[in-house]
Amino acid sequence: MFGAIEAGGTKFVCGVGTGPADLRTIQFPTTLPEATIGRAIRFLQEESGGELKAVGIGSFGPIDLHSASATFGYITSTPKAGWQNCNLAGAVRDALAVPVGFDTDVDAAALGEARWGAAQNLSDFLYLTIGTGIGGGAIINGRVLHGLVHPEMGHIRVPHDLVRDAYRGCCPFHGDCLEGLASGPAMQDRWGIAAQDLPADHLGWTLEAHYLAHGLANWALTLSPQRILLGGGVLRQSQLFGRIRHDLAGLLNGYVRATEVIRDLDQYVVPPQLGDRAGVLGGLVLAEHAYTRLDRE
Amino acid sequence: MFGAIEAGGTKFVCGVGTGPADLRTIQFPTTLPEATIGRAIRFLQEESGGELKAVGIGSFGPIDLHSASATFGYITSTPKAGWQNCNLAGAVRDALAVPVGFDTDVDAAALGEARWGAAQNLSDFLYLTIGTGIGGGAIINGRVLHGLVHPEMGHIRVPHDLVRDAYRGCCPFHGDCLEGLASGPAMQDRWGIAAQDLPADHLGWTLEAHYLAHGLANWALTLSPQRILLGGGVLRQSQLFGRIRHDLAGLLNGYVRATEVIRDLDQYVVPPQLGDRAGVLGGLVLAEHAYTRLDRE
Repeated sequence: MFGAIEAGGTKFVCGVGTGPADLRTIQFPTTLPEATIGRAIRFLQEESGGELKAVGIGSFGPIDLHSASATFGYITSTPKAGWQNCNLAGAVRDALAVPVGFDTDVDAAALGEARWGAAQNLSDFLYLTIGTGIGGGAIINGRVLHGLVHPEMGHIRVPHDLVRDAYRGCCPFHGDCLEGLASGPAMQDRWGIAAQDLPADHLGWTLEAHYLAHGLANWALTLSPQRILLGGGVLRQSQLFGRIRHDLAGLLNGYVRATEVIRDLDQYVVPPQLGDRAGVLGGLVLAEHAYTRLDRE
Repeated sequence: MFGAIEAGGTKFVCGVGTGPADLRTIQFPTTLPEATIGRAIRFLQEESGGELKAVGIGSFGPIDLHSASATFGYITSTPKAGWQNCNLAGAVRDALAVPVGFDTDVDAAALGEARWGAAQNLSDFLYLTIGTGIGGGAIINGRVLHGLVHPEMGHIRVPHDLVRDAYRGCCPFHGDCLEGLASGPAMQDRWGIAAQDLPADHLGWTLEAHYLAHGLANWALTLSPQRILLGGGVLRQSQLFGRIRHDLAGLLNGYVRATEVIRDLDQYVVPPQLGDRAGVLGGLVLAEHAYTRLDRE
């Protein structure tokens, strides 16, 4: 039995189990670290009856993923009050005395979708979430891409359509980067209406598809994924999928010569299959990885 | 002893040897496939005295890298006359009867730099070439990123600075994608002067650094490389490095929290160390990979 924590900036989701058919979860708001992490630890202890083999954590960031680093397992320079330099993985490991796997929230969700969802049997794919922020996790040759730190894909620059869109963008670091133009808060800020309340025929959705397609095109050309999973609150407007695929096809313009991209775009850009449970299920996969690594050492 | 072929759209470079200190090369113009490939094969045969263990090919593309595909080892949909559906790897394998490794020209160069050049001991880095086209090869977790086809990074969209630059871009597929705005032919077409003849204080270099920095920022945020190697004909204008680093720092604006990117940008964006020999030396690495794989089977 494994434990999982999806540590989000707004809420924590914790789970105990072995997979989608055997998963007991709880969720609660993210307050200050001690209380929030304490609550997660208590749930994992009580729900497992002390039988956990390992715990996996998918966390909001930025986080330190370098196992050789003195701050490995920390949330580092987040703007979220109280959470800077928070030793999240260490607190869980110390309390539960089991191996702890640690990765970004989007990497965890990608691993969950790879095991049980829309990315099964793929060696190379991209998991994206479009909501409060825009984040991406990439699996390359069957392994999570971390690199120097971890990707921050939402902050790429794409052409800003100044003819139709005078909005300056809301990213405090970059103004009109993709997240600054196309995250949920950007839509709210630009139109004065929350994304979920914008009518389906509003110009906002046309622009949203336009910008997201630019992001997808850039990532498709850079990462050459076998599939792109596109989730998050903004995508609850499911009409967006058709528009994004249409704009993406126009942007690529036949250049990527693969039937998956030329002909079968509706199988190439897809929603995740695990919905809101992708992150916590991915936590189980991270727990298993941590357990197996220990086993090998 | 291994053989290597760097198959470019303009010229072929062939080599025989074991590394930078032991490499005999020849180069000749790319004409039609039969004559060009035949010449490469003859060189490899004669120069090795029939003692080759394997050959590695880094090729212009697009190419088919899927070992299970019926057209594995082919150059596929290139616009270059005569080279469509050309079985490059097969022709070499049939003539020389040794294992043949096959990858893109930029992936080969990346592998060469990883073994002997500016990317030694890195698990995650990006090799870029800015010349007739813009191409990138990525090493992720120590392995080449191929994915669905292979990356075509040069064709990402970045913001087009229409205030300073009315040029429409020269990419036949995408107009003002990065390659359409910042390749060597784009500079020639925009200013009516070849890139190497533009004065160092020309606006063209300011724009060139601006666009390339946008590409580098997007790739840094997407791939999280430990280093970016930046080569190709356009970068012979070495003043570009300082300008690109300056613009890149402005674009990232402190968001990627790593000393490598915040403080040590002159060690983060660097020229390749193997110069014009990166591709052919990478061919030796591909040959070794092909030989070792055979050994294991």
